Amino acid sequence: MNYKVILRTLGSVLNIEAVCMLLPVICALCYKDTESFKIYLLCSAVCLVAGTLLSLIKPKHKTMYSREGFVTVALSWIVISLFGAVPFVISGYIPNYIDAFFETVSGFTTTGASILTNVEALPKAHLFWRSFTHWIGGMGVLVFLVALLPLSGGSNVHLLRAESTGPSVSKLVPKVRSSAKILYFIYIGITLCEIVFLLFGGMSLFEALTLSFGTAGTGGFGIVNSSVADYSPFVQNTITVFMILFGIDFTVYYLILTRRWRDALKSDEYKVYLSVILVSALLISVNCRYLFPDFATSLRHGFFQTASIITTTGYSTANFDLWPSLSKTILVVLMFVGACAGSTGGGIKVSRILILLKSIRKEIKISAHPKSTHKISMNGKTIEHETVRNVSVYIAVFLVLYAVSMLIISFDNLDFTTNFTAVAATINNIGPGLGLVGPVENFSLFSPLSKIVLSLNMLIGRLEIFPILMLFSPYTWKR
Amino acid sequence: MNYKVILRTLGSVLNIEAVCMLLPVICALCYKDTESFKIYLLCSAVCLVAGTLLSLIKPKHKTMYSREGFVTVALSWIVISLFGAVPFVISGYIPNYIDAFFETVSGFTTTGASILTNVEALPKAHLFWRSFTHWIGGMGVLVFLVALLPLSGGSNVHLLRAESTGPSVSKLVPKVRSSAKILYFIYIGITLCEIVFLLFGGMSLFEALTLSFGTAGTGGFGIVNSSVADYSPFVQNTITVFMILFGIDFTVYYLILTRRWRDALKSDEYKVYLSVILVSALLISVNCRYLFPDFATSLRHGFFQTASIITTTGYSTANFDLWPSLSKTILVVLMFVGACAGSTGGGIKVSRILILLKSIRKEIKISAHPKSTHKISMNGKTIEHETVRNVSVYIAVFLVLYAVSMLIISFDNLDFTTNFTAVAATINNIGPGLGLVGPVENFSLFSPLSKIVLSLNMLIGRLEIFPILMLFSPYTWKR
Repeated sequence: MNYKVILRTLGSVLNIEAVCMLLPVICALCYKDTESFKIYLLCSAVCLVAGTLLSLIKPKHKTMYSREGFVTVALSWIVISLFGAVPFVISGYIPNYIDAFFETVSGFTTTGASILTNVEALPKAHLFWRSFTHWIGGMGVLVFLVALLPLSGGSNVHLLRAESTGPSVSKLVPKVRSSAKILYFIYIGITLCEIVFLLFGGMSLFEALTLSFGTAGTGGFGIVNSSVADYSPFVQNTITVFMILFGIDFTVYYLILTRRWRDALKSDEYKVYLSVILVSALLISVNCRYLFPDFATSLRHGFFQTASIITTTGYSTANFDLWPSLSKTILVVLMFVGACAGSTGGGIKVSRILILLKSIRKEIKISAHPKSTHKISMNGKTIEHETVRNVSVYIAVFLVLYAVSMLIISFDNLDFTTNFTAVAATINNIGPGLGLVGPVENFSLFSPLSKIVLSLNMLIGRLEIFPILMLFSPYTWKR
Repeated sequence: MNYKVILRTLGSVLNIEAVCMLLPVICALCYKDTESFKIYLLCSAVCLVAGTLLSLIKPKHKTMYSREGFVTVALSWIVISLFGAVPFVISGYIPNYIDAFFETVSGFTTTGASILTNVEALPKAHLFWRSFTHWIGGMGVLVFLVALLPLSGGSNVHLLRAESTGPSVSKLVPKVRSSAKILYFIYIGITLCEIVFLLFGGMSLFEALTLSFGTAGTGGFGIVNSSVADYSPFVQNTITVFMILFGIDFTVYYLILTRRWRDALKSDEYKVYLSVILVSALLISVNCRYLFPDFATSLRHGFFQTASIITTTGYSTANFDLWPSLSKTILVVLMFVGACAGSTGGGIKVSRILILLKSIRKEIKISAHPKSTHKISMNGKTIEHETVRNVSVYIAVFLVLYAVSMLIISFDNLDFTTNFTAVAATINNIGPGLGLVGPVENFSLFSPLSKIVLSLNMLIGRLEIFPILMLFSPYTWKR
């Protein structure tokens, strides 16, 4: 294990965090909030000092192999959360450090699960930082690092692989650094579009920025207690559209930008994703029709909530915990489906589900006609056997971690629905679940142990299991 | 598709059912219950006539390939349930045919989920038939057929494979028919042991027979409303031990009978199974200590309920729906784990879970050291790649069917816990779940559509998915 190269990369990540923390400093300045100004300036300085000290480490060789890549990514996310939680603690708004860590992990992993009972009590600078963690976590902090810094010798691809979503990493162009730059370029572009639309819908710049950050990262932290329920239908519909857009594989946008329409049309994943949204939203709208004054309202809430859950954003316009059983079950199933691979969304990902379904169909065909041969293809390409195996193992680890998490948090003696959906909402990076963690509730009722377990679940979900698993595996640390 | 050989085999299966129905006839005779006597005699005659007519079909060639095997097994189980439900309907005790079908499927698949609110109202002959369906379903009706009749040309192994439990079929001896005979020999032997123990514990012959049938098949239909709660601690402990015994791979007993101790000790599966029972039961006993007068009582209930759920029997000595959250979560996890492959128990099976865990470990090792090679082994043998893939696909189909079932039954608008555990309790062939399908509740509250879906779940669980899936797949019926 090349410890020095890992520590050096952690240093760069902390330097990035130091720069990011200057944004809430500016925000505090705008709102003349001297206390928050001092706190974020101090925290930024601390990050900078720690980052610079680590950057001074000179590794003998700069090569980073697969396991160093996994460990670096896992540690980076833990470290930025550990540092990112400090402003909440020293400001006294989240006095308990474990609570603050949970909140920050929830931010960076774009989960949006909160332990705060009253977010409106927070100063603007803190709300801004909370939402901005979503934006930086959405595309990934190491993707950002790769885009900025010239790292050497195979490092980049391992970092990108460990942090990007989906069963196989999609390099847009042969050069990893250029791919990372293009991804951030698209990401910033669509975020700006949303900000413009929200400003047009009558929002203040602060509202438009924070809500756009939450949408772009598919995070879901609100800046008011009612999430998105009290905004105008125009704003809600705008957010619905952008949530759906951020749930699509960014490769599709790249293909559209480079005018490769035919290639863009070839992708199966986003077609399935859009179809699932359409069918689910219509079913929910019909099922919940009796709760709303007219069908148009029902459609608006149906589409908003479907988009919010499948993209794993977690904003809400209504308390869906009170919706009929069918609608709730659809939403719970969508929690696991998740968004497209290569998007900022969480969950198992549509492409993994598609590969699973196709391998089931293949197995049925083989059972019926044992001598026939079949191959699984997606997006017009044959899926390699390696990828199929990888998806199967992914689901297996997912289920094992799910069961273990449920067992540990059940020590708190909450009800089954709460425990089941609390794990679903964290490991899939959604935010709200059902029951005591429903959309109008929060995660403050869990014990510190459960909060740590659920924080790990969020990291496991965002980094797609393996980096965190590798960090705790003895095989990683063996020579 | 060789339709004639399928129909002919269905005929033989109906003939076996006709003979089985003579047992409740004898039971009715003993209790001088003329009405039940007539009903079961009539139904037995109907089965015999239908069976004989189908047996008259002469297929051109007797060869049965893989897909014919799957279809025969699936249809056999549906047909025996359709015919087996008739006595309940014409006696008027379960007037609705869908309810009676649900109850009979629950019997044959050894689930033990009931739609009856008061089983004590049923005459002895009906209770006997209900429990006897568990016994015949436990080892399998086609295993019985194979043991009895000399079928030709590769038929036997396909039937055995489609009906026996676990990821790979275990032929005890090279001849399939001899294997089937040995399995039934061991099955009858252990059942007789249990009957003797229960008689020794002060039970009547009727009680000892019906409860032993329920234990042997890991079924769980009780003959009183309180399940096993009102019996003596000796009887409860006896049933605990025998439930655990029937959850072990029968190959182990065969190896012990043939004095191949060393081979018997090699099996990993039953060691893991027994360890899981020990740890779970102790955790539950400590967790539920406050509910009982002393720790010995807590241990008795803890071990009984753990054994009942992991073997997927479903008897209960206490209303575990009122137990603390940790105990309930342990029980729900055990519902999915299930018993050993090659036993009469249901669930995913310990061996599948083991293969999954081992393939996860292998993947972690490979991620850490990409150039290393690893093989998965179990019971001292290398697991073939084919088996690992089969297990992965099994879990994938399981999850998809689980989600679809939950979506359909949620039309009934019951709560999430009830829906989730109703599917868990049926697809894993357990019986009781939590909430409105808890151990002191029943399945009568579901709509006819949900009852059909849950009946299919029970068949899917007992036949380990593929036979039922093949029956509904267009690929099976293509030339």
